[in-house]
Amino acid sequence: MSIFHHKKEISIQTIRRLPQYLRIFYNLHAYGRELVSSTALAEETQLLPIVIKKDLQAVGAPSKLRAGFKVAGTIAVIEKFLGWNNLNKAFLVGVGHLGAALLGFDGFKNHGLEIVAAFDTHPEKVGNSVHGVQVYHTAQLAGIIEKQNLKIAILTVPAAAAQGITDTLVAAGIKAIWNFAPVNLTVPPGVVVQKEDISSGLAELCAKLKSR
Amino acid sequence: MSIFHHKKEISIQTIRRLPQYLRIFYNLHAYGRELVSSTALAEETQLLPIVIKKDLQAVGAPSKLRAGFKVAGTIAVIEKFLGWNNLNKAFLVGVGHLGAALLGFDGFKNHGLEIVAAFDTHPEKVGNSVHGVQVYHTAQLAGIIEKQNLKIAILTVPAAAAQGITDTLVAAGIKAIWNFAPVNLTVPPGVVVQKEDISSGLAELCAKLKSR
Repeated sequence: MSIFHHKKEISIQTIRRLPQYLRIFYNLHAYGRELVSSTALAEETQLLPIVIKKDLQAVGAPSKLRAGFKVAGTIAVIEKFLGWNNLNKAFLVGVGHLGAALLGFDGFKNHGLEIVAAFDTHPEKVGNSVHGVQVYHTAQLAGIIEKQNLKIAILTVPAAAAQGITDTLVAAGIKAIWNFAPVNLTVPPGVVVQKEDISSGLAELCAKLKSR
Repeated sequence: MSIFHHKKEISIQTIRRLPQYLRIFYNLHAYGRELVSSTALAEETQLLPIVIKKDLQAVGAPSKLRAGFKVAGTIAVIEKFLGWNNLNKAFLVGVGHLGAALLGFDGFKNHGLEIVAAFDTHPEKVGNSVHGVQVYHTAQLAGIIEKQNLKIAILTVPAAAAQGITDTLVAAGIKAIWNFAPVNLTVPPGVVVQKEDISSGLAELCAKLKSR
């Protein structure tokens, strides 16, 4: 369950909690707070103080004895750990309901992600812009990826189209794919894929509801 | 990490993989296949055969010695485990970009979920329908929940509005909240909340990309 081989191991569960900590630390910082205890963080996150301590220590968050974690310093280490201190240029393929919703989400810029282009094959979409992002034809993918030095692909195409598009992306040199299509992608070593499956969350909710 | 206290423990990770298995088994069933080996499932899912075996055995999937899992029987046990053999009536609060995208997602009916009403406060949205779902004013929440016997709330409101709406939902008797707002909700015991945080997936992708 951990993805680091050459450094101290940090679990995926810890990584998934980092954005939540980051949001809280941004708020604290905005209010001028310099230190926060793991007990206060526990109240805010509904996590155990020991979990929070371990998570933050794993990424090297600076702390002051008996006073808690340093707010500005912790923001800096989490941002650096995730690479969110720099904006990564990303693009989105598949401007359907979900794709359009992601284009409209303002939160990504705080998460190191700038969506600078979108792609679709639908004649009504190509040439227009959605939430300020220009939509190009999918046939233009390879050229625009290279020209704009794009790093991260967000895939919101139907399942049947996902592997074909992925092959094009890989050939164009893309190293990171955030996959929202309900299908497992085959990629060569060195290309990372993060799969999102909304039905996993629903399964968890339903199982909790049944066992209540 | 497991949510069952009174039955055999099933981990959250297993539960989150069940929809993926279900999709594959539906496909196999459509093609008339009666049995499938964990090796074949491993190829399809990119999971280890031993993980698949443990997951499916945990929910009681029927199998045939040396021939694999029974397709129809496995579908039945997973659907029953998740309660997806019956449609649960759900509603959505907050018809913004994400809310509208979820209303447009056809997959939910296969997942035991029927979204029958939506709520918003915006005068331009109230009274219209989005992807065939009627939008009511949020002030009508309590009355409609009771009248239509709604069970599951999908919360896609801004963070600042989420706790207030949650209090209304809890007072109206809602027992399950699928929370897409980036905030932790406080609910009384007996009410289950499933939190979705899109930035967790992005954090995972970025950490993988950095450690590549």
